[in-house]
Amino acid sequence: MPVTIKAHIAYRFYAPTDFLLQMEAAAIPEQILSGPGLTSTQSEHFARIAGQDTIGERIWLRVNGDFTADYTITAEVQRTLADISTLGALQPHKLPGETVHYLFDSRFCPGDRFHSFVEAEFGDAKGGARIAAIRDWVAGNFTYEPGSSVATTTALDSFVERRGVCRDYAHVVVTMARASGIPARYVSCYAPGVDPQDFHAVAEVFLADSDAPDGTGSWHIIDATDMADPAKTVKIGVGRDAAEVSFLTSYGFAEMLDKQIEVIG
Amino acid sequence: MPVTIKAHIAYRFYAPTDFLLQMEAAAIPEQILSGPGLTSTQSEHFARIAGQDTIGERIWLRVNGDFTADYTITAEVQRTLADISTLGALQPHKLPGETVHYLFDSRFCPGDRFHSFVEAEFGDAKGGARIAAIRDWVAGNFTYEPGSSVATTTALDSFVERRGVCRDYAHVVVTMARASGIPARYVSCYAPGVDPQDFHAVAEVFLADSDAPDGTGSWHIIDATDMADPAKTVKIGVGRDAAEVSFLTSYGFAEMLDKQIEVIG
Amino acid sequence: MPVTIKAHIAYRFYAPTDFLLQMEAAAIPEQILSGPGLTSTQSEHFARIAGQDTIGERIWLRVNGDFTADYTITAEVQRTLADISTLGALQPHKLPGETVHYLFDSRFCPGDRFHSFVEAEFGDAKGGARIAAIRDWVAGNFTYEPGSSVATTTALDSFVERRGVCRDYAHVVVTMARASGIPARYVSCYAPGVDPQDFHAVAEVFLADSDAPDGTGSWHIIDATDMADPAKTVKIGVGRDAAEVSFLTSYGFAEMLDKQIEVIG
Amino acid sequence: MPVTIKAHIAYRFYAPTDFLLQMEAAAIPEQILSGPGLTSTQSEHFARIAGQDTIGERIWLRVNGDFTADYTITAEVQRTLADISTLGALQPHKLPGETVHYLFDSRFCPGDRFHSFVEAEFGDAKGGARIAAIRDWVAGNFTYEPGSSVATTTALDSFVERRGVCRDYAHVVVTMARASGIPARYVSCYAPGVDPQDFHAVAEVFLADSDAPDGTGSWHIIDATDMADPAKTVKIGVGRDAAEVSFLTSYGFAEMLDKQIEVIG
Repeated sequence: MPVTIKAHIAYRFYAPTDFLLQMEAAAIPEQILSGPGLTSTQSEHFARIAGQDTIGERIWLRVNGDFTADYTITAEVQRTLADISTLGALQPHKLPGETVHYLFDSRFCPGDRFHSFVEAEFGDAKGGARIAAIRDWVAGNFTYEPGSSVATTTALDSFVERRGVCRDYAHVVVTMARASGIPARYVSCYAPGVDPQDFHAVAEVFLADSDAPDGTGSWHIIDATDMADPAKTVKIGVGRDAAEVSFLTSYGFAEMLDKQIEVIG
Repeated sequence: MPVTIKAHIAYRFYAPTDFLLQMEAAAIPEQILSGPGLTSTQSEHFARIAGQDTIGERIWLRVNGDFTADYTITAEVQRTLADISTLGALQPHKLPGETVHYLFDSRFCPGDRFHSFVEAEFGDAKGGARIAAIRDWVAGNFTYEPGSSVATTTALDSFVERRGVCRDYAHVVVTMARASGIPARYVSCYAPGVDPQDFHAVAEVFLADSDAPDGTGSWHIIDATDMADPAKTVKIGVGRDAAEVSFLTSYGFAEMLDKQIEVIG
Repeated sequence: MPVTIKAHIAYRFYAPTDFLLQMEAAAIPEQILSGPGLTSTQSEHFARIAGQDTIGERIWLRVNGDFTADYTITAEVQRTLADISTLGALQPHKLPGETVHYLFDSRFCPGDRFHSFVEAEFGDAKGGARIAAIRDWVAGNFTYEPGSSVATTTALDSFVERRGVCRDYAHVVVTMARASGIPARYVSCYAPGVDPQDFHAVAEVFLADSDAPDGTGSWHIIDATDMADPAKTVKIGVGRDAAEVSFLTSYGFAEMLDKQIEVIG
Repeated sequence: MPVTIKAHIAYRFYAPTDFLLQMEAAAIPEQILSGPGLTSTQSEHFARIAGQDTIGERIWLRVNGDFTADYTITAEVQRTLADISTLGALQPHKLPGETVHYLFDSRFCPGDRFHSFVEAEFGDAKGGARIAAIRDWVAGNFTYEPGSSVATTTALDSFVERRGVCRDYAHVVVTMARASGIPARYVSCYAPGVDPQDFHAVAEVFLADSDAPDGTGSWHIIDATDMADPAKTVKIGVGRDAAEVSFLTSYGFAEMLDKQIEVIG
């Protein structure tokens, strides 16, 4: 069943300002895209660069004055879903090279602070069972509270205060996965069911394709907010955490005038 | 003039443990390597993967019991040095795609907290002049104090306490460069003159090859500790910060028994 | 010249809730009060307790539903003002016992992190000259920016981000004074000239009454925002920092409906 | 049964330095003291001031060179012990005025960050039952690990990392009690059974003397480390947290040469 996305943003810049825009669904095998795509107001500069891990694209723009972007797309998601609790984790030394840097800590995900916690709380569970336990723990202990976090809120802050929005839920899952020696990244996305409708974010973890600790592995979506169905989640981009996949990162002052997201599926 | 490096580390593991080792000089055009290289005790597993930005290599090892590694190499450094204060910064939208993620904040380098500071302190200086001002400010305001920082110390901590070791100096420079819209990364390295002799770390920033804000660009080493000569600094690897280029990252308990570094040049 | 104060607050409580109210000018020798004082809506409980250092009073209230308080007073301030830059600091061991706890760090004022900074930045200046240098440094390096801080912002956060409101300016001065071995406390107050009009906060430091490091000492108001004239500042209460002298501290959810402050003098 | 205490400390000062010493058992009704007491090397200055809440005394000293202090005392503890789980908490507005400031957050005890946690984890338990639940939770989830914390470690750090020493255990209990609206303070003390033998620290909370939320109240010792018996714990002093009751607080560099504590009881 297709997912239909309509997104509209409007910003004002008071001086010629460079910014990165990343709001298009990624053209990757697991999601077939069709539709008009992105249209935006005139800009002094417009150049595409590959997104992290070549998933999706970022666009460099340079604008002075008002800027609006409209994005309309239909995505057919063809993602293999698994019962993650039955999957093993690959031993670290069996991890594909390109997943290794997702073991490392990042701006909002200080896994180094959580080794004791994850061992104490989830010590018996390994691999996918560990991830399922982390997801359930966050889902069970956190309150989804719009406005409760700010741009500098880390997973440590969220962990202590037990609340946040999708960004914070994803950060905590990523952090605890890394503290468990499991590669984890942050995925910005669109998904039906997000309430209130907005850009969404989930975690993604790299697990073995079976219960064996060697062999091949794959990335799996984890949404501790329980708001998004992985079968209908449309990825925009990935990164170590929110510091790397904002939908708009401005190198100068940017005033948001409007943001409207509609996702149906 | 060649730089001669001898490094020895010894660790003890009390259970079969995976760890990443990154202590070899990187085989890159700017440094010609000769000599015996790395020898280590028997391990259950030994596999090389590419380092970040394909600079250097990381080695996955799996060891139970005692482990020693010895590394001996001679490096001829052929690095083009520039007076960075004369160089411009590329406009963000002119940056090569592969440098863009070095604008983003990382575990130990929260550039988002430093926008006000860098504008207030260095507002008039742009590009390479900004970087030179940052380097001079750190060199002038910090005290090099072995033991004053721990593994979780961030650039924000170091900034407030005005002290640290090479790792902390590099983190502060990286953070302030990013807060200035200039890509910056962390470089682990060997260098003569480091006192006491040890692995060293410096920052690297990406600046325009001229004073024009477009055109091509290059990475330049910045060492605010003033201990290492860029003409004799031998790179091991790069990353967003120390979280990504430790010489040894263990996924389980590791006891350091010995570390001896000798760099002559 | 008298200072005339009118303050109005309105809150809503959704269950019987205890809260502390501290919005009356303190009845202390340095300010002569006249006028109707405080009136408030009916409450289940109303009891006065002494404020910190017996400066002013706190009122315990217990309310369910809507609560309003109106306070009208005229204060004649008779405070001895001094050119603090000419005063010495008392040696710690000469400090009166009741000032000693203002040397210790508190929730928002971690002086222990600032020893290096104050020595490096203000090392030559001692006593009142040190305080004057701290005040000028904060005044010169900070931007007054309503909305830039939150309830959990510490002096360390403000120091890094170089901005805040009166609460944050006071916290930074208090912190740097304590890091310099000078007792410092936080004063909530009313003052003409605060823009926009609101409750105000300043720092207070304990200095020698002369340039000698022994003898007697006194508290002196320091306002690094430069908005309030110490000769017209009407004290409400004092504490280690804002955690101890909020105008309203609720033990349960409290919704602010209105707050209007008018101070003329 | 008497508790016998022998304590010895030795410090070196490289310049005339003021410091506060607080290592004597407090002369309070609940502990009857006998024995030689404190002897110390000559000092330029020696003056006693009352400790916080007039429990115990602090001594101001001024020393240049080597300083040793020896303290020998026998204490007969006559403290009324209660099963705290049967006691209620006083409603905030029924608290004695002098206990109110122990509701406020302090340097190492940021209760404001823990409101969600304590409600979620201990929501059903009130008063003494809440305190018992907090004590059991800390005892059950923390690892006592000498060397795992530093002077700037807060209760938030300890909570995340789930480990610490007596100081950290006490800070976490104090923080969670305050987040629950229950006054809590930090107590430095001597106690038999502390392993390794050292100065000790516990929390103290103010609860109702019955299960009713009004009436009178008393302070009760809580030791989540389970190392000390409240019936044999000899108090030195109290404060909001460790920032206020160090056994030695120096206003200048102090080198510790020796510390030996022996407590038998």
